[in-house]
Amino acid sequence: MGPTQTLAEFVVNHRYEDLPGPVIHEGKRSLLNWLGVAVGGAHHPSIDIAMQVSRQFAGGPVATVLGRGDRTDVLNASFLNGTSSHVFDFDDTHLDTIIHPSGPVAAPLFALAERDGTSGQALVHAFALGVDAACRIGLAVYPSHYDVGWHITGTAGVFGAAIAAARLLGLDVPRTQQAIGLAAAQASGLREMFGTMTKPFHVGHAGRNGLFAALLAEAGFTSSLQALEAKRGFANVLATEHDLSEVTEGLGERFELSRNTYKPFACGIVIHPSIDGCIQVRQQLGGAVERVAAVELEVHPLVLELTGKTEPRTGLEGKFSVYHSAAAALVDGEAGEQQYSDERVSAPLLVDLRRKVKATANPAVREDEAHVRVTTTDGEVLHVHVEHAIGSLARPMTDGDLEAKFLSLTSASLGEPAARQAIDLLWTLDRQRDLGALVQSVTPLAQPSI
Amino acid sequence: MGPTQTLAEFVVNHRYEDLPGPVIHEGKRSLLNWLGVAVGGAHHPSIDIAMQVSRQFAGGPVATVLGRGDRTDVLNASFLNGTSSHVFDFDDTHLDTIIHPSGPVAAPLFALAERDGTSGQALVHAFALGVDAACRIGLAVYPSHYDVGWHITGTAGVFGAAIAAARLLGLDVPRTQQAIGLAAAQASGLREMFGTMTKPFHVGHAGRNGLFAALLAEAGFTSSLQALEAKRGFANVLATEHDLSEVTEGLGERFELSRNTYKPFACGIVIHPSIDGCIQVRQQLGGAVERVAAVELEVHPLVLELTGKTEPRTGLEGKFSVYHSAAAALVDGEAGEQQYSDERVSAPLLVDLRRKVKATANPAVREDEAHVRVTTTDGEVLHVHVEHAIGSLARPMTDGDLEAKFLSLTSASLGEPAARQAIDLLWTLDRQRDLGALVQSVTPLAQPSI
Repeated sequence: MGPTQTLAEFVVNHRYEDLPGPVIHEGKRSLLNWLGVAVGGAHHPSIDIAMQVSRQFAGGPVATVLGRGDRTDVLNASFLNGTSSHVFDFDDTHLDTIIHPSGPVAAPLFALAERDGTSGQALVHAFALGVDAACRIGLAVYPSHYDVGWHITGTAGVFGAAIAAARLLGLDVPRTQQAIGLAAAQASGLREMFGTMTKPFHVGHAGRNGLFAALLAEAGFTSSLQALEAKRGFANVLATEHDLSEVTEGLGERFELSRNTYKPFACGIVIHPSIDGCIQVRQQLGGAVERVAAVELEVHPLVLELTGKTEPRTGLEGKFSVYHSAAAALVDGEAGEQQYSDERVSAPLLVDLRRKVKATANPAVREDEAHVRVTTTDGEVLHVHVEHAIGSLARPMTDGDLEAKFLSLTSASLGEPAARQAIDLLWTLDRQRDLGALVQSVTPLAQPSI
Repeated sequence: MGPTQTLAEFVVNHRYEDLPGPVIHEGKRSLLNWLGVAVGGAHHPSIDIAMQVSRQFAGGPVATVLGRGDRTDVLNASFLNGTSSHVFDFDDTHLDTIIHPSGPVAAPLFALAERDGTSGQALVHAFALGVDAACRIGLAVYPSHYDVGWHITGTAGVFGAAIAAARLLGLDVPRTQQAIGLAAAQASGLREMFGTMTKPFHVGHAGRNGLFAALLAEAGFTSSLQALEAKRGFANVLATEHDLSEVTEGLGERFELSRNTYKPFACGIVIHPSIDGCIQVRQQLGGAVERVAAVELEVHPLVLELTGKTEPRTGLEGKFSVYHSAAAALVDGEAGEQQYSDERVSAPLLVDLRRKVKATANPAVREDEAHVRVTTTDGEVLHVHVEHAIGSLARPMTDGDLEAKFLSLTSASLGEPAARQAIDLLWTLDRQRDLGALVQSVTPLAQPSI
């Protein structure tokens, strides 16, 4: 039996009762984080454009565009909500693969569950299985797949979406295999798109296409039954090296959802240790940033590879600039969405400071580690060693941190009472009969935009 | 200036008057062939399923599902018409890349032109440019891209769709580049899917996604401006070897559309020389197929690689079986859609005969060449050497052949007068004010199915 079939059998036969309590709780944490960034991102210009374009393709209004209140069909809702949840680059990260797993998986599940009146428990279950599958498929092809240039959240995410949707729809094993095949046929997304609207597009596209795969398979559309392992299937075509045992080893025993992490800062995760260190240096300086003469960052090599933009021109590009991020952390003491506006990226004070930042790659430095050395105008050297950045697996955000992040992303549009209600509903999602109350709680105060 | 920008500038600035007459005529031949297979395939079970599923996502009815008469939104129409045009594996082939170029390009153009009331001349022009772009991008990555397992009609086709749609929409150069970027972000499709409904799905998906790319770019959605050549762009990520000069060399001088070919037989093109030879042997036998004791085919190596299924179980699988195809050609004297029904693939006479077929790969045999040697029960050996199969560039189907193919694919559903009218309208497409009359002529006699 190949890994495609093994995975399908696991997903079809797994019982909610066999999901460990901590995995269920991590699922709720992931969904809380995801819903916050989806609602927070819902009015980004890329979503305005996507909604304007997709209006003419909108089918029956059965699923909500989160944070906007409009209703559309399940494919459009998956696309829009998946995209909006990644526009801030502020969502979750499975560090072992750099997959942002919730976007492509949760977006179609929310849409389907709303259409069908599915229970919160079924959603949490399908979500855990979908995230597990996406991350395992990612692990099987990482790092060669990522290194060559695939945006793995798109390519592995479409499988997570298809598998989660297949489970929520109650597909049998062969149809789940076909859904995996249709997902493989749509796996796409390139790292070249980083810094443009097409990066979050990948996430929405993966969620939309995975759901489409499951819906087609449900109706009897045929596809390969061994799409992961076949000679010209996913792993062989999209990765020069792979290990498909990652897909099936310990299924049901370890859940990759348990290794999910959440971003305290609204930018590429590899920058987080540097930001963490700069915020600490700022505290040592008592906020007297004008004293900074030079900033030296000693970082993992991926930092320069992924976020080496020295002169970002837009907020989006700023998220891929360790230089801008360090400057913003020193000046503002934080790196939230506000620090990545187009205006902030062009602010003279920040532009001036970022040009004083030098970053050096050191392969001995871990991905969640950084050294920050600031030399002041009077020659003092301040050194902060961040062993594990906040938000890493070793120093995870607490439930309270996640609630605060959710509130900061959603209170302005939802009103704080509704935002707090959404939090309560998420912590009890496995006991909600359907998504009605939760979706209602994230409907913005303003009128629908379509 | 990189190839992405060069290509975009060419597409934006090219004038219809500069399209050579033979290229225009080849465009009409391609569209005649394409429309025939799209209408002919419109009632295939895969289209029934796709329509049933997509019904809930259908937006405003502005574009026709060809051969069915239903109207839907332009994305759904592109998806459905692109898919139906490839379900028989009977469409066109750019032999130098094995791309089936019309499906992904014509499907979105028909939908857009119908929505916008665009002239036939503008459609023919955009079609020629889109096919040229898809085939050039294919040439740039062929064969390494195809060899590893990409279904190049999907991966290169999405560019053709995006570029053709961008031209028809009148996008400027930067937005055409963004459309190319959004196409690259969606490039997908695996050869593992051959023999399942997901193969034609790739074509519809490419057409749909390319159009979506152009529509998003039109509205200001941002993407990479150098998606073809960037370090982590299309060519580097999806091909181990590539030559991007193919994209730009001689733009406007040579048009790859001129090298398009059309299938006389409803199956994988590499089988055609063998079928051609078997039909000739059948004539020599006077149809006395019961005399056949053994069939030896000497063929290009790709024949066994692509169509080596010895025991096909379905009509679709039969299209990838040189054994079934040879048997059908010997028994029926043709290899049209009827020879690839599920029933015909399981017919005892054909099963018996196909087991007598032996195929040997010979690297010295060209792709459009084959030797067929039949030994009869009384020891006679009949040998046919097909130097260039019918339908090859060296022995192209005539305009009359294409008309006959169109009629055989469409007369039953449209009625012969309407089918003949459609032919007349296609030959004069560059003089049609809009697509109204043509779309009307391919509306089936039966009632819409939605």
